[in-house]
Amino acid sequence: MELAGVETPVGVVDLGRARENVERAVAYCRSHGIAWRPHVKTHKSLEMARLQLELGAAGLTVATAHEAEVMSTVTGDLLLAHPPASAAKVDRLCALPPSVDLKVGLDSIEVLRPLAHAAASTGRTFGILVEFDAGLGRTGVVDPGEAVRVAEEAASLPGVRFDGLMFYPGHIRIPRSRQAGRLARLSERIAAFAAELRQAGLPPRVISGGSTPTMWDSHLLDGVTEVRAGTCIYNDRDIVGMGAAAPEQLAYTVLATVISVAVPDAAVVDAGSKALSKETLGSGAPGYGVLFDRPEVTVKAINEEHGILDLGGTDWRPSVGEQLRLVPNHVCVSVNLHDHLWGIEGADSAARPIWLEGRGRLRVPPCAATRSAS
Amino acid sequence: MELAGVETPVGVVDLGRARENVERAVAYCRSHGIAWRPHVKTHKSLEMARLQLELGAAGLTVATAHEAEVMSTVTGDLLLAHPPASAAKVDRLCALPPSVDLKVGLDSIEVLRPLAHAAASTGRTFGILVEFDAGLGRTGVVDPGEAVRVAEEAASLPGVRFDGLMFYPGHIRIPRSRQAGRLARLSERIAAFAAELRQAGLPPRVISGGSTPTMWDSHLLDGVTEVRAGTCIYNDRDIVGMGAAAPEQLAYTVLATVISVAVPDAAVVDAGSKALSKETLGSGAPGYGVLFDRPEVTVKAINEEHGILDLGGTDWRPSVGEQLRLVPNHVCVSVNLHDHLWGIEGADSAARPIWLEGRGRLRVPPCAATRSAS
Repeated sequence: MELAGVETPVGVVDLGRARENVERAVAYCRSHGIAWRPHVKTHKSLEMARLQLELGAAGLTVATAHEAEVMSTVTGDLLLAHPPASAAKVDRLCALPPSVDLKVGLDSIEVLRPLAHAAASTGRTFGILVEFDAGLGRTGVVDPGEAVRVAEEAASLPGVRFDGLMFYPGHIRIPRSRQAGRLARLSERIAAFAAELRQAGLPPRVISGGSTPTMWDSHLLDGVTEVRAGTCIYNDRDIVGMGAAAPEQLAYTVLATVISVAVPDAAVVDAGSKALSKETLGSGAPGYGVLFDRPEVTVKAINEEHGILDLGGTDWRPSVGEQLRLVPNHVCVSVNLHDHLWGIEGADSAARPIWLEGRGRLRVPPCAATRSAS
Repeated sequence: MELAGVETPVGVVDLGRARENVERAVAYCRSHGIAWRPHVKTHKSLEMARLQLELGAAGLTVATAHEAEVMSTVTGDLLLAHPPASAAKVDRLCALPPSVDLKVGLDSIEVLRPLAHAAASTGRTFGILVEFDAGLGRTGVVDPGEAVRVAEEAASLPGVRFDGLMFYPGHIRIPRSRQAGRLARLSERIAAFAAELRQAGLPPRVISGGSTPTMWDSHLLDGVTEVRAGTCIYNDRDIVGMGAAAPEQLAYTVLATVISVAVPDAAVVDAGSKALSKETLGSGAPGYGVLFDRPEVTVKAINEEHGILDLGGTDWRPSVGEQLRLVPNHVCVSVNLHDHLWGIEGADSAARPIWLEGRGRLRVPPCAATRSAS
């Protein structure tokens, strides 16, 4: 299939760049003796998961029961980095193939106990990573004493096994040149939690960090054994903007078609919030995305099936029917909006479908998985 | 299925409220002699489309070829309110069942000509609504003379039929009490375009307006024959905030589960930007949604699978594992994130699936359509 003939809007993966991004992540982690356990939320794809594992990923990170089910077909080493706080979710985890060694990140005894009980009653053992709040103020225990309390409970209950600590440094999103102070404070915080656990006789075997913005500084964080960074397979406007990837490492774009140039100084494409998403940038930079070939042109406004390009700062004028490629602010939510992506090896190559088997939440695999197998 | 046992996050439709919302829209339109052609982008559901048609909708509005294909199974009267600017889309429109009378909204001869050519060569005739810009600055010709030029081309080409005018008043989103000036200016603008067409011997048989915020004032707009408002079947925080629906008319929520209360003054639910979306409100009100039962509690921050509730202004504290219902800022993009919704007749009733057959873009109907039929 030629890209020029595909229906838009649709996500497009530059397969060569994605492979290079995976190789770069593996090389960085290897050079520092850290394991890479990429989060599949970014790509939701068995093909991309296989690529990561083949090139050296130690296992995979998932956020949903559906992602765990789908990814259990390519690895037995999974981390669910999201507390399963309902029987519906726990039941699905217990029904994973027995060969899967599932680790679960959580921050409370309220989630731990029913999980352990269900695991024990189905004859399996889940590894437990106790999550602490690294500074984002989202999930994770705030106090090292509370981490010990959850870890001790995990160590004492049948059906679970205490493995270590997990954190998500999502609050560190400033340009890398100004991260040093935050990284140093985070490193001290990690050390404090680990020390308290060691004192309690529960040394953390695993300390799992994450996030693409901080990934390349993981070696500066005390005791980190693995990182979960997932966005780095594709990157996006946000990641490039904060200096955590170069523009040449953008491996995902949304292919769109110009549908109207009737309004002066604007051009409208068919990629809107149901293809790019309507996420704004944390940096405050305006727009919902930029043109891949002309990053000075932003998507200044967006509706569900319309994206309005700001042509105020350029003499370039596109024509109705012209295909354009857009870089979204946040790749993970854009990927999640598509039925499938098109993969290309270069700008002029033929495109082939990249299925998104991990998309959705249904226990029965969605269409994409079926199609992939046929 | 009891709602308490379903896996979260998932969208929930209060079927009684949805029906009342549809009845209200039909009653308003009937009382003013205006046709209601609801946009299906909000619900994406054959069941909801059937409900709208049974209760009095004159036909349906769609934005994509996939929506047109799916909705062609329940009505032969469709309007595609989005310029089909590629051969891939035009081919799909030409392959719709011959019984479908498809109207297409567009604003350029560049889109019109290939569409007419393809229609003529497959022996069908598409109705054409020439879109004019009502003030949003998105799509639509700006000048009445340009509308005449496109209309004359439509009237002269085989394969198409000039039907009239279309506009989208998406710029009118202020509280209704302060809309009067904008509505008056819009009414004058509609009249100017219609007059120019009549002078050219091409009186518009259809003048198609839209948008839920302006819907209830459509009778104040000169010559409008139909409205496309779709969001009014469910409503959302945005629509209620601008006074275009009452809180009792909120028919859609996202059911979520509390997964963590480890961080003080916050509680985290499993509904994030992949369930609610990360759209902000045009009004500038903070947050990505509110609790259905406690609208003073906002979702203050959001990640892909996490929503962080702001408990700063309340003494209420939820427990881990507790189910909560959230009102999204923008219902249409939230619905689009789910595999299916659960429909309930009341707060304590059993839930049944509402399939979203119109979701996605693939020519082959997605799983949901297949499941619905089985």
